[in-house]
Amino acid sequence: MTQNIYDDPNFFAGYSALPRSQQGLDGAGEWPTLRALVPPLDAADVVDLGCGFGWFCRWARTQGAASVLGVDVSTNMLARAAADTADSAITYRQADLEELRLPVAAFDLVYSSLTLHYLRDLPRLVGEIARALRPGGSFVASVEHPTYTAPTSPAWVTLGGHDVWPLDGYLLEGPRVTDWLAPGVVKQHRTIATYVGALLEAGMQLTALVEWGPSDDDLVAHPDWTRERDRSPFLLLAASCRTQ
Amino acid sequence: MTQNIYDDPNFFAGYSALPRSQQGLDGAGEWPTLRALVPPLDAADVVDLGCGFGWFCRWARTQGAASVLGVDVSTNMLARAAADTADSAITYRQADLEELRLPVAAFDLVYSSLTLHYLRDLPRLVGEIARALRPGGSFVASVEHPTYTAPTSPAWVTLGGHDVWPLDGYLLEGPRVTDWLAPGVVKQHRTIATYVGALLEAGMQLTALVEWGPSDDDLVAHPDWTRERDRSPFLLLAASCRTQ
Repeated sequence: MTQNIYDDPNFFAGYSALPRSQQGLDGAGEWPTLRALVPPLDAADVVDLGCGFGWFCRWARTQGAASVLGVDVSTNMLARAAADTADSAITYRQADLEELRLPVAAFDLVYSSLTLHYLRDLPRLVGEIARALRPGGSFVASVEHPTYTAPTSPAWVTLGGHDVWPLDGYLLEGPRVTDWLAPGVVKQHRTIATYVGALLEAGMQLTALVEWGPSDDDLVAHPDWTRERDRSPFLLLAASCRTQ
Repeated sequence: MTQNIYDDPNFFAGYSALPRSQQGLDGAGEWPTLRALVPPLDAADVVDLGCGFGWFCRWARTQGAASVLGVDVSTNMLARAAADTADSAITYRQADLEELRLPVAAFDLVYSSLTLHYLRDLPRLVGEIARALRPGGSFVASVEHPTYTAPTSPAWVTLGGHDVWPLDGYLLEGPRVTDWLAPGVVKQHRTIATYVGALLEAGMQLTALVEWGPSDDDLVAHPDWTRERDRSPFLLLAASCRTQ
C-alpha cells in the first residue's frame, strides 16, 4: 500500500498545525483557483479521494451536493473528520487508494486535493475514476507540481544574488524521499505529461490545466510567497467524462 | 512583427550548420516522437507554420498529402526550401505568423515545429488555426519546453557534484533574450498551462501532451544528451478540431 505517513504521530502533529489544517480550505493558497474548476454541485453525488479532515466534503454540502463520500487512508485524519462533521449525507471511508474500488457511474464529481503524488499506480486509480463518473461528470484534482517534486535536492539555492530552484531528474519518474514534517516522506514524482496522459488514456477529456502561483493580491497578504512564481508549487487539473 | 532572427546572416549560417538543418527531420532528436503524433496524411491538405527549409513539407508529400503550404517569415529559409523542392503540390509563402490569415476549414493538419515560442500573440494564431482546420482535423506542434525557456540564466550549473537546471521565473511570462547562434535572440516564455489553455479556449480538444526526452537508444548514440532528462527541452502538443 501507499506509505501512510499521515498516521505517523510527528507528521500528523506537524500537518495539523499547517494553515490549511487550522483554517480549512481558506488556509490553502490554491483553493480559490481550484474551487473555480469545481462544477455546480446542486444535487450532485461527490467523492473526495484523500479527504483528510473533511473540509471539502463539508463545503460540497454547502454547495448543494446530495451526498459526499470522503476516502482517506489515515485513521487519524478520518477520526477528526468524523468528529467535525454532523451531516448524515457525508460518509467517511478508510481505504488505500492503490486498491480502492468505486461503484460504476455513481458520481458527478471526483475530487482529489494534494493526494495523487503519493500514489504508486496512477493509471489504475484514474481508470477507476473514469468508470465511477456519470457521463458528463467531472474529475478535479491538485498535485504537487512536477518541477517541485523532481529535484534530488528540493530546496532554493542562491546563485548570482537571486534564488533558483535546482531542477534535475524531471523526466526520471519514481519515488522521492523528503523530510517534510517528518523524515522519510515518500512521494511519487511524475511529469505533467504523465498526469495528462493518464486522463486521456482513461477516455477523459481535459478541460483545464493550471500551474498555480500567487496572485498580486496574494503577495500583498503573503510577501513570502513571491518565490512560488519562480516554479509553480501546484498543478491543478480538470477533466470531464465523455458523454457517449 | 516577430523578430526575424533567421534572416540575420550570422544566425542563418549557424542554424544552417545544425544537424537538423543538414540532415533534415532525422537530425532532430524529437522527430520520431513528433512524427507519431501526426495523423495519416493520405489525401490531406497540410500547412506547416514555420516551415524553414521545407523538410516537413516534402515528408508530408511522401505520406500522401494532397497539398502542402509552407509558411515562414524568413526569406533566406524559403529560398533554400524552394531550391530543394521540385513538387508543384508544395507552395511556400512568406508571412509573419503574428498577422497570418488562413482560409477557413481548409486543412486536415496544421503543423508547427519549434516556432510558436517566438510568437508574441499566441491566442490570435491558435484561433486562426482552429478556424483553418476542417472538423476532425489535427494541430500538431512542438515548442521549446517552458522549463527550458523560463530561466534568467538558462545554462547548467554544477551543484554538489552534479548538474542542475537553475529554474526561476517560470510563472513570469514574457520575452527572454538569449545568445543562441547570434546575440539578442528574443523568445517568448509561456507556461505549459498557457499553451494548453490556448488550445482549449480555441475550442480544440487536447489529444496528446509529451515532454520529450532521449530514449535509452538515443543515449547510446548520443551520450551527451543524458542531461536532457534533467529537464525536458521540448514540449509536444496534439489537438483535434471538434467535429461538431
